[in-house]
Amino acid sequence: MKRKVLVIGIGAGNPDHLTVQAIDALNRASVFFIPDKGAEKSDLAQLRREIIERFVTRTNYQVVGFDNPVRDSATPSYRQGVSDWHDAVEDVYKTLLAERLNDGECGAFLAWGDPGLYDSILRILERIRARGDIELEYEVVPGISSVQALAAAHRIPINRIGESIMITTGRKLKEGFPENADSVIVMLDGQAAFKNVDGDMEIFWGAYIGTPDEILVSGKLSDVLDEIERVRHEARSKKGWIMDTYLLRKPQAR
Amino acid sequence: MKRKVLVIGIGAGNPDHLTVQAIDALNRASVFFIPDKGAEKSDLAQLRREIIERFVTRTNYQVVGFDNPVRDSATPSYRQGVSDWHDAVEDVYKTLLAERLNDGECGAFLAWGDPGLYDSILRILERIRARGDIELEYEVVPGISSVQALAAAHRIPINRIGESIMITTGRKLKEGFPENADSVIVMLDGQAAFKNVDGDMEIFWGAYIGTPDEILVSGKLSDVLDEIERVRHEARSKKGWIMDTYLLRKPQAR
Repeated sequence: MKRKVLVIGIGAGNPDHLTVQAIDALNRASVFFIPDKGAEKSDLAQLRREIIERFVTRTNYQVVGFDNPVRDSATPSYRQGVSDWHDAVEDVYKTLLAERLNDGECGAFLAWGDPGLYDSILRILERIRARGDIELEYEVVPGISSVQALAAAHRIPINRIGESIMITTGRKLKEGFPENADSVIVMLDGQAAFKNVDGDMEIFWGAYIGTPDEILVSGKLSDVLDEIERVRHEARSKKGWIMDTYLLRKPQAR
Repeated sequence: MKRKVLVIGIGAGNPDHLTVQAIDALNRASVFFIPDKGAEKSDLAQLRREIIERFVTRTNYQVVGFDNPVRDSATPSYRQGVSDWHDAVEDVYKTLLAERLNDGECGAFLAWGDPGLYDSILRILERIRARGDIELEYEVVPGISSVQALAAAHRIPINRIGESIMITTGRKLKEGFPENADSVIVMLDGQAAFKNVDGDMEIFWGAYIGTPDEILVSGKLSDVLDEIERVRHEARSKKGWIMDTYLLRKPQAR
């Protein structure tokens, strides 16, 4: 009997982003693994617990909190830093699965947004499965990503007619605006990399998207840059963490 | 009293992709506008009707079918063809909203996948709103896109560690594989543009994703190209239409 793991996309912060498929998946699991350390982690862990309480109708389930290792941002190579971090996360997950999930039992991880988009969990599970120390199979349930929630909140199409979209990270945006991109969505930007971008760009920015704390700002980048920096700083100070996403696009040729 | 329009993402083909937010939105609408002509349209219209019947609990609603204009692919310029087509669609939508939705009433369009991703409806509604002939406000409810459903079905992360993702169209892929892209997702590819791509690429391909007819093929492109072409041709002949999406990524440096 294999251990079964469900990786369930829970959407971008609004519990109403849960799909019928995700709710069904939640109800198949008897053990929920929830990372729950740190200020950001604490708010997000709270949201995960609320989702479980609201949608799980079975009563015989366990919630197992755990401490997710943190990436050492002092490692000179980003790739090496991520790789070391993944090794550490793999150890934690393997121990969790081996010790807290019995053969034949079904466990679940609740992934913020969509499990396939800038989340490491599928890579980690695949490494554990491939290593073969414990027999494991997993399923993935897609979720509403912050990309989609951002566009919906701003009521805009993500792509321009016939054009491509690039999804990238703040770290990569700092290296320069991608050459052949028309619309660029930036995730995981801890450092406000939009400050280095041509001020003629249009920006559609959002933080805590889909939650009661949602903040939206949009306009010509040079016009709204200061406002974004201000609200970003204020919100981060107040809550102790921020999760923001934005769409940049070149001014439309007319 | 303004007319209210809800643009509701219904996911990639599996009715279980509906979110709680989408179900709530469906139940706010009293008129549903459904394009329902053509072979493909007929299957998709059927799915939309099933979704309405399954999730709408109110009984006093209307379903209004309409004939969506088709883009004239003979127009030499793609952009001009799209522009003419949008003019025609705008006329149809404006007439629908003016004649079938009363002031203060709430209507809904059910958008395949996510309303912001390669769908024209938000552009059309914004044009109608901006023109001001009828007073209109609209809201957008995000949905699971075929991109996410594809990745979930293949159980893969969409991005590689720290890398960007490009989402593009078959038409653009025919112009060449994007220079600075690591992972490329291709939508709206009527012409199997993957045939022109370096055979060393990895492909994760899927058709009718999330439906009982789902077909998945993955592997090194040169190894699976023939199989994809064969199953694609068979499925298209059998159903009369195909909707496929795929992820291409460069072979991983080791």
